[in-house]
Amino acid sequence: MFNTILIANRGEIAVRIMATCREMGIRTVAVYSEADRQARHVREADEAYCIGAAPATQSYLRIDAILEAARAAGAEAIHPGYGFLSENAEFAEACERAGIVFIGPPAEAMRLMGSKIAAKELAQRVGAPTVPGYNGAEQDDQTLQREAERIGFPLLIKASAGGGGKGMRIVESAEEFLPRLAGARREALAAFGDGTVFLEKLLVRPRHIEIQVLGDRHGNLIHLGERECSIQRRHQKIVEESPSVALTPELRAEMGAAAVRIAKAAGYINAGTLEFMLDEEQRFYFLEMNTRLQVEHPVTELVTGLDLVRHQILIAAGEPLAITQEQIEPRGHAIEVRLYAEDPAQNFLPSTGTLALFAEPTGPGIRVDSGVSSGDDISQYYDPMIAKLIAYGENRAAALARLRTALERCAVLGVTTNLPLLSTISKNQAFQQGQTHTGFLDEQGLLEPAPQAALPFPVLAAAALSEIEQPITKGNPWQTQGPWRLRDEWRELSYQHEEQDYRVSLRPALQQPNVWDIAVNGDEPRSITALAGYDTLVVIRSGAQQERLYVDCQRDAISVAYRGQVYTLQRRQPPDIEHALHGSSSAHTQKALKAPMAGTIIKVQIEEGATVKANQVLVILTAMKMEHSIIAPYEGRVQRIHCKEGSVVTGGSILVEME
Amino acid sequence: MFNTILIANRGEIAVRIMATCREMGIRTVAVYSEADRQARHVREADEAYCIGAAPATQSYLRIDAILEAARAAGAEAIHPGYGFLSENAEFAEACERAGIVFIGPPAEAMRLMGSKIAAKELAQRVGAPTVPGYNGAEQDDQTLQREAERIGFPLLIKASAGGGGKGMRIVESAEEFLPRLAGARREALAAFGDGTVFLEKLLVRPRHIEIQVLGDRHGNLIHLGERECSIQRRHQKIVEESPSVALTPELRAEMGAAAVRIAKAAGYINAGTLEFMLDEEQRFYFLEMNTRLQVEHPVTELVTGLDLVRHQILIAAGEPLAITQEQIEPRGHAIEVRLYAEDPAQNFLPSTGTLALFAEPTGPGIRVDSGVSSGDDISQYYDPMIAKLIAYGENRAAALARLRTALERCAVLGVTTNLPLLSTISKNQAFQQGQTHTGFLDEQGLLEPAPQAALPFPVLAAAALSEIEQPITKGNPWQTQGPWRLRDEWRELSYQHEEQDYRVSLRPALQQPNVWDIAVNGDEPRSITALAGYDTLVVIRSGAQQERLYVDCQRDAISVAYRGQVYTLQRRQPPDIEHALHGSSSAHTQKALKAPMAGTIIKVQIEEGATVKANQVLVILTAMKMEHSIIAPYEGRVQRIHCKEGSVVTGGSILVEME
Repeated sequence: MFNTILIANRGEIAVRIMATCREMGIRTVAVYSEADRQARHVREADEAYCIGAAPATQSYLRIDAILEAARAAGAEAIHPGYGFLSENAEFAEACERAGIVFIGPPAEAMRLMGSKIAAKELAQRVGAPTVPGYNGAEQDDQTLQREAERIGFPLLIKASAGGGGKGMRIVESAEEFLPRLAGARREALAAFGDGTVFLEKLLVRPRHIEIQVLGDRHGNLIHLGERECSIQRRHQKIVEESPSVALTPELRAEMGAAAVRIAKAAGYINAGTLEFMLDEEQRFYFLEMNTRLQVEHPVTELVTGLDLVRHQILIAAGEPLAITQEQIEPRGHAIEVRLYAEDPAQNFLPSTGTLALFAEPTGPGIRVDSGVSSGDDISQYYDPMIAKLIAYGENRAAALARLRTALERCAVLGVTTNLPLLSTISKNQAFQQGQTHTGFLDEQGLLEPAPQAALPFPVLAAAALSEIEQPITKGNPWQTQGPWRLRDEWRELSYQHEEQDYRVSLRPALQQPNVWDIAVNGDEPRSITALAGYDTLVVIRSGAQQERLYVDCQRDAISVAYRGQVYTLQRRQPPDIEHALHGSSSAHTQKALKAPMAGTIIKVQIEEGATVKANQVLVILTAMKMEHSIIAPYEGRVQRIHCKEGSVVTGGSILVEME
Repeated sequence: MFNTILIANRGEIAVRIMATCREMGIRTVAVYSEADRQARHVREADEAYCIGAAPATQSYLRIDAILEAARAAGAEAIHPGYGFLSENAEFAEACERAGIVFIGPPAEAMRLMGSKIAAKELAQRVGAPTVPGYNGAEQDDQTLQREAERIGFPLLIKASAGGGGKGMRIVESAEEFLPRLAGARREALAAFGDGTVFLEKLLVRPRHIEIQVLGDRHGNLIHLGERECSIQRRHQKIVEESPSVALTPELRAEMGAAAVRIAKAAGYINAGTLEFMLDEEQRFYFLEMNTRLQVEHPVTELVTGLDLVRHQILIAAGEPLAITQEQIEPRGHAIEVRLYAEDPAQNFLPSTGTLALFAEPTGPGIRVDSGVSSGDDISQYYDPMIAKLIAYGENRAAALARLRTALERCAVLGVTTNLPLLSTISKNQAFQQGQTHTGFLDEQGLLEPAPQAALPFPVLAAAALSEIEQPITKGNPWQTQGPWRLRDEWRELSYQHEEQDYRVSLRPALQQPNVWDIAVNGDEPRSITALAGYDTLVVIRSGAQQERLYVDCQRDAISVAYRGQVYTLQRRQPPDIEHALHGSSSAHTQKALKAPMAGTIIKVQIEEGATVKANQVLVILTAMKMEHSIIAPYEGRVQRIHCKEGSVVTGGSILVEME
């Protein structure tokens, strides 16, 4: 067995891999970019090496620097995690040349299955159905347009080297084809250094079902059942579960057998996943193989009782699989959701900044795989995933109930997250009934931001109390605070939320520690007991009824997390100019167009003085490997351009000024 | 199903029960004593009611107050947890009279099995073997002494109404019998209000094996396999696991069948546990039944995939068991350890105070059921358990490896705990080989405190850095700190640990943020990078090697948790008098005898002026339901007595002065 393993990754997956290494008595080595000097995966490691600057191409994608760190640390093996170099055959080969074991499949199998085109051909050879499409070598616009029309619309353009929705486009009609093709190629080139694409028929209301396999160096290869990952945003999974409600035992066996056939034909070794679509008539189609550990592997771990990373390491060390296909008996149900620092109301725009608070849910049957802790930074350079929340239960209903509760008790302050969306999904009736497909979010209207209800009283009470008592003292506030408390005196605080003004009046109760009278907008005061919280937790009691809230007081605003929602109360009205720039109702008067987030400008499509149409794309910015377009809010003339291609801009900086 | 459940308990079990209630959509109601106003179980509840003063008899044992809270909250059911009223048949009856469902067995079954004597008779009737002993109604000294001599020594005296080792005594010889009997009776009376005892043959190197059962109101009763809980201290379990290495499938089936026979004969409903001893010849003997949820229920939950509290609630609501005996198939292995605020080096004396830090281990396969968080108080009034750490793995070796790792990464500061002992057990070879029995700790010499190794360098470095940089800043220390940093200046700090003096010299490195030169006792300085920690975590790096430590700076001392051990470094030498009072080497000169902890004086066995022998018991104090004797350190005369029976004393207060 290995003594030392280097983990060539960051974030939650690096943290998770290290956990298993430690248990196996294996020393862990982290590598990190300059942006990650203080990152959690560094803090968790036994050893750590800086491998370069913040952009992944200058650090986490640098094969030479990683191998040098491995040599310095005396690592006998490297675990690549997912993303970054995990599916890079050259990296696997470079490891081999350096005498270091790559914990993953052989380079040949990776290269073969890494090409979606070759993988589909192989699947067809072993009799596994695939989605109709075009995966030819001819990549000129004309050929692709012709093939697209042959397949029919809607169809998908996908990056041949891709994954995670990058370089993917949906095309609804023939006219849309060429512009979408250009965008897909550009994104694929940026993400994978390869602009090759393929075309695929778009199935109607399909489910995404994938089969986990494990193969050793001795010819044993088994499957560990399926995961359903139909609920996606931007073609990226956000909810994953096992088992799938759509599979009968027969279909499971059939799909499992197909997965094993394909993986065996590819000479596959170690952990891998075969992705399928399942249509409404229970027909399945092989899509592609992910030749690495998946983000969603924990749901399989929970229903099989196995530690996939442990088996990856054992296999890489040359051990034969200790489990047979017959011993794999999924039990219970597991559901995972991905918590991202992103704003669903702004087309899932990543949100960067310091995580003021991340309160992880805990309890029986709850597993949280996280890569950050309160106080850590979410930077623009990497994937904005904060954590994966995984709930296990005796059956789907029990797992779902746990998930719902966990989401309600989870709190993130400091960055915007998809937590409210995840919470809404967990309560969605169609989801509860298992009626999922890849267009689920759109169909259920979950992509539109839900209007926030009126500000709940506990949110106002917690905000006002936190402002006055930060942190709420355990003892008698009469003794610990200033002179205004000595009298029966009301204090008033003003907040603004969604253009509504709120006035909170409060005074401490005489002789009763932690008891307050609190009134909102001149209503009848309520008697509130504030229970001492730790960190930023506040528990308030009215009568015997209690509510839990998390509060973060910033300079101008107070953020309160309550029942899976975050409310941001402005302490004072923002300056009019700010309001004009951000308010959608004032779009027709908006003059300065700002960067929605920190990123790099990849395209400036206009010149100063040019006349532009409403909704015309002016500038394209890339951040966290996604493209974001800055569009003209109205027809008009461009007065000034404050950026150029290649420049790095901060979030909120003005890019273009309109006349 | 119930809408609202009151949890008549506190600590981790109340928190754990509430978790399941929430998932089932059930509103949770906490009750609390005045000492628990801010306690975690209160913070977790939807509603909370104060039911009286700190002593349990004035709060958690008050049936009237609890029922009143239930009525006020509209609770349809009460979950009693374990301990307190959980095995009190009168409470179950009072609930029934009040029209509230008691989540537990019927009062008759509880009363029947609550008497160890009746339970043994019932077991004998259904053909389950029991340990030879005396369980007669005659309780006079003479009869008991005669019966003891008939059974032979060693034997056990046990409280008939007891549990958890309270009112229990081992008797090695006939001469010891009567004094031990008196102590057992007194403790039993204090704890259970009933001084009835029974006698039992003491088995040699037996294992403690218990069988979990679940029965519904419709006549279905199944068992969920065994737990082995052989490793005990003061007759209280501290390590529990499932399955037991000692059981063959045949023996498991046989013991399970015996458990089901006994429980069915008792008319048992809901969750219960039948405790057995297993001797070295694989013979098992029924001991007693616990008519409630056990502390160690999580290990069964992890290997069966079931939520026992959920099933308790479903059963109480009248639902038939949804699982059959055939569906129960334990998978993998789970081990639980109990983390107590107590000092193994001082005969497991409970440790009270504020939990400066409780860093819970996390990760795949790790479950922590805790009742306190950092900042909470551990009071003298209740059981000093901080948390249960439970590790699940594919097999025993994997579960054990997880447990070892979890214990190394767990940290508690502010109170003394048994964490180092648990860590030592987890690494013990005989335990790893499964060679456990109820005398394990004693046999393996684990009850003697292990001598602490020389103070590791990282501990000194972390202490010194924390003292200077509290918290360690993320930025350049040159900018954020005082003028002494502006020059290349050494700073020196002095500590004392186990009568050794340490001198730590440190200076910040020029122009390198968070890098320091640190030297101990004039040795060659090492270059150390301090990674920003959150809360009290410090990660220090020397070369590429990293170490994780938790630090708590108090006024006179700095406590550092490192790899499962806690090191307390004195900032200055303690006053000579303190040293004289506590140092064992100076016992012959010790004049003032102090209370080892806060508690209530239950017996003053001497008068002022009396001459006493060395080791004579002078005063008996009770705290956390255990008795502690204050003994004479040498032969001499009692000068003054500073306490009387019934008085409440604080830890460290002088009880007796010798001449």
